[in-house]
Amino acid sequence: MITFASELYEREGLEGERRRQVVQVLQAALAAVDPAEAVRRYLRCQEGVLEIAGQRYPLERYKHVYVVGAGKAGAPMAQAVEEVLGERITAGQVNVKYGYTLPTRFISLQEAGHPIPDEAGVAGSRRIAQLLEQAGAEDLVICLISGGGSALMTLPVEGISLEEMKILTDALLRVGATINEINAIRKHLDALKGGKLARLAYPARVVSLILSDVVGNPLDVIASGPTVPDRSTFREAYGLLERYDLLEKVPSSVVEYLRRGAHGEIPDTPKEGDPIFAHTQNVIVASNDIAAEAALQEARKRGFHALLLSTYVEGEAREVGKVLAALAKEEATFSRPVPKPACLVLGGETTVTVKGKGKGGRNQEMALSAAISIEGFEDVMIVCLATDGTDGPTDASGALADGKTVPRARERGLDPWMYLENNDSYSFFATLQDLLMTGPTNTNVNDLAFVFVW
Amino acid sequence: MITFASELYEREGLEGERRRQVVQVLQAALAAVDPAEAVRRYLRCQEGVLEIAGQRYPLERYKHVYVVGAGKAGAPMAQAVEEVLGERITAGQVNVKYGYTLPTRFISLQEAGHPIPDEAGVAGSRRIAQLLEQAGAEDLVICLISGGGSALMTLPVEGISLEEMKILTDALLRVGATINEINAIRKHLDALKGGKLARLAYPARVVSLILSDVVGNPLDVIASGPTVPDRSTFREAYGLLERYDLLEKVPSSVVEYLRRGAHGEIPDTPKEGDPIFAHTQNVIVASNDIAAEAALQEARKRGFHALLLSTYVEGEAREVGKVLAALAKEEATFSRPVPKPACLVLGGETTVTVKGKGKGGRNQEMALSAAISIEGFEDVMIVCLATDGTDGPTDASGALADGKTVPRARERGLDPWMYLENNDSYSFFATLQDLLMTGPTNTNVNDLAFVFVW
Repeated sequence: MITFASELYEREGLEGERRRQVVQVLQAALAAVDPAEAVRRYLRCQEGVLEIAGQRYPLERYKHVYVVGAGKAGAPMAQAVEEVLGERITAGQVNVKYGYTLPTRFISLQEAGHPIPDEAGVAGSRRIAQLLEQAGAEDLVICLISGGGSALMTLPVEGISLEEMKILTDALLRVGATINEINAIRKHLDALKGGKLARLAYPARVVSLILSDVVGNPLDVIASGPTVPDRSTFREAYGLLERYDLLEKVPSSVVEYLRRGAHGEIPDTPKEGDPIFAHTQNVIVASNDIAAEAALQEARKRGFHALLLSTYVEGEAREVGKVLAALAKEEATFSRPVPKPACLVLGGETTVTVKGKGKGGRNQEMALSAAISIEGFEDVMIVCLATDGTDGPTDASGALADGKTVPRARERGLDPWMYLENNDSYSFFATLQDLLMTGPTNTNVNDLAFVFVW
Repeated sequence: MITFASELYEREGLEGERRRQVVQVLQAALAAVDPAEAVRRYLRCQEGVLEIAGQRYPLERYKHVYVVGAGKAGAPMAQAVEEVLGERITAGQVNVKYGYTLPTRFISLQEAGHPIPDEAGVAGSRRIAQLLEQAGAEDLVICLISGGGSALMTLPVEGISLEEMKILTDALLRVGATINEINAIRKHLDALKGGKLARLAYPARVVSLILSDVVGNPLDVIASGPTVPDRSTFREAYGLLERYDLLEKVPSSVVEYLRRGAHGEIPDTPKEGDPIFAHTQNVIVASNDIAAEAALQEARKRGFHALLLSTYVEGEAREVGKVLAALAKEEATFSRPVPKPACLVLGGETTVTVKGKGKGGRNQEMALSAAISIEGFEDVMIVCLATDGTDGPTDASGALADGKTVPRARERGLDPWMYLENNDSYSFFATLQDLLMTGPTNTNVNDLAFVFVW
């Protein structure tokens, strides 16, 4: 269970009571997306049959069970798989971020570079590829995917070095290529991304357990989609180099490889309908909407009329904060869209256009903007939480705002507008002791925002 | 009934069918806030008893019935009152914007300057004051308030000229005073604003019928609250002049008047609890939430699961557009927060930070931003409407976006991002024939946004 620093809720009377209720709702949301919990919930083994989201895998049919994968949540996910399958695991290799290792017995963990891939990650990825090559028609591969998986599981194709990949990425960023375009190119230069992990494993059965850190859970984007059909083509990837006039500016090994692919000399990434994917089950075991649903259930248990509005929220944090305030005011004034006490839940991930020099994160900035808009409204609380426990470059996971936030700040001589202008939401909420402090949660399913009205 | 230009909905097959449904929902919303309709709905006369929102006024008790007021919707409101009360009206004076007169029999309409007040407005306001002074304990005053009423009903106190008021306002704007601060000062320099209309009418009974054009319906803000308690004081008003260092920079008549007020030599504006307000009934007859509720009812009649999320929406239009898209995606993917077919309704008024040189309005820009975010989503429509029929400096009242908006634009060679960057949403939607075109609707209860998902 994730705990919150007690300054937040150890308050007198009604205020403390409400804050403790709120913290319990947040804890329920985080518990539901704890990586080990998430794997345990979906991976069940009874009487020799592994059951995963309705699919049954009688273990006697499989000679070997391999576990592969990558991501920041790789270690607790691997531990949970070991709890369920234990000695049935033949071998395993999962890449995790430096410092993220936990004790495992059958699955080997490789610490590696994130967000910049390094040779340690490449070495681990090569061992993953070797395991997959061993796997045959009578084997089962369990793949564990979580945020950061794309960088942590990097294996450039034969003849292209990690250094050359880095030069390519830098060049693409300089010419303003979008993240989708960069990923389309990288998928074609990597041995595991873009469905190629599943192809390497074929004809083995593949079950991919995915912890989604991308808004809307697009499977081909999360960790660059190692076990799902790819929609981009060699031809597009090469066309992007032409369009951005990069043919002379990126390593010739890259240009040559993409050119050969575009001319059909190398098989393209596997597409929708490829028989590979009839052997592959992709299961999202933790995601923003799973966290939001858990919050909803907990809020209902505590007597709130709870409603989940969206898990796709994006936009400039301070503007989205105003929309949260608009929802709070409607509840406070008209008891809409649900009767009071109300708990509205939204998920997604906003952005901050940094202009000031202060310290803050998107969730704290959203809460500060909301605080300004709900000034004076009683019985209203707005809470913004980064589920990974690290909101922007701060050690807070978010902040809590209510109708008294601004008056309390003014009493202490703080001008909320100035803090917002200076992107200094961390300092603002730190002074009020209204930061959410959890420490790293070891999971990441983006952000959650809550509107509570009593 | 307000009609929409038919290019919007005269389309083939399912698309046309859905667009016609959508237009009917918009029409229901606009019909509910038609000024004459709104007055008729709240003002009922049966067997000699006038009934207004549950309050009964037996007409035999009243010697005279006076009708006063101001606002852009003043003419149709006056006509509706004449329909109900006819010859029972002793006299009336309502100020309206130039070109907004309609035929009336008992109530005299004065055309006046808006948004800059002029001497015609002052003359009309003086006649309003004279009627109110005549009114006694046995009389009834009906006051008609709508958007623009503050400028249209301007009556500076004795000794201060309209020109001096203008110099004051300009000086306040130059030093960056907020609209609330400017209004606090102006209320103290005007003979009718800030509850003083009600005080002049006292001891007559006053019924104020209010068409709200301010988000959240704050009665003391709409038309500067002529019939409601004022929260600002002479002392604050004078303090603002000091704080902004304007004592030497604004006309001495203004400084002197506020100074005397601050020293208690002039009675302050009437406050909450003043017996005047026991004689006053304020009724909001049209507002954003009345329009939104009507849309909701019509959508339900047409089989939609409809939900009103907020009538307080504010923020940068393009960012709020992304939140609308987030709601649409949730409905499309998860059928939340209500089952499909779904209609989510939001109201309020957004703003646009203009950076480009194109033509557009806040609603059109919000729809363009939403269109980009819902690209490719099927069975989703987002509609943004300015209820006055004039979105920003354009002749459109808004725009309609769906999952095909962006592909259709690309086919025609339009880059949606470039149009958004250039604040050129009008040109964008004009090319696609997806503008809402109604002409002026003669009402204004801010904006409505709709998310339809089938």
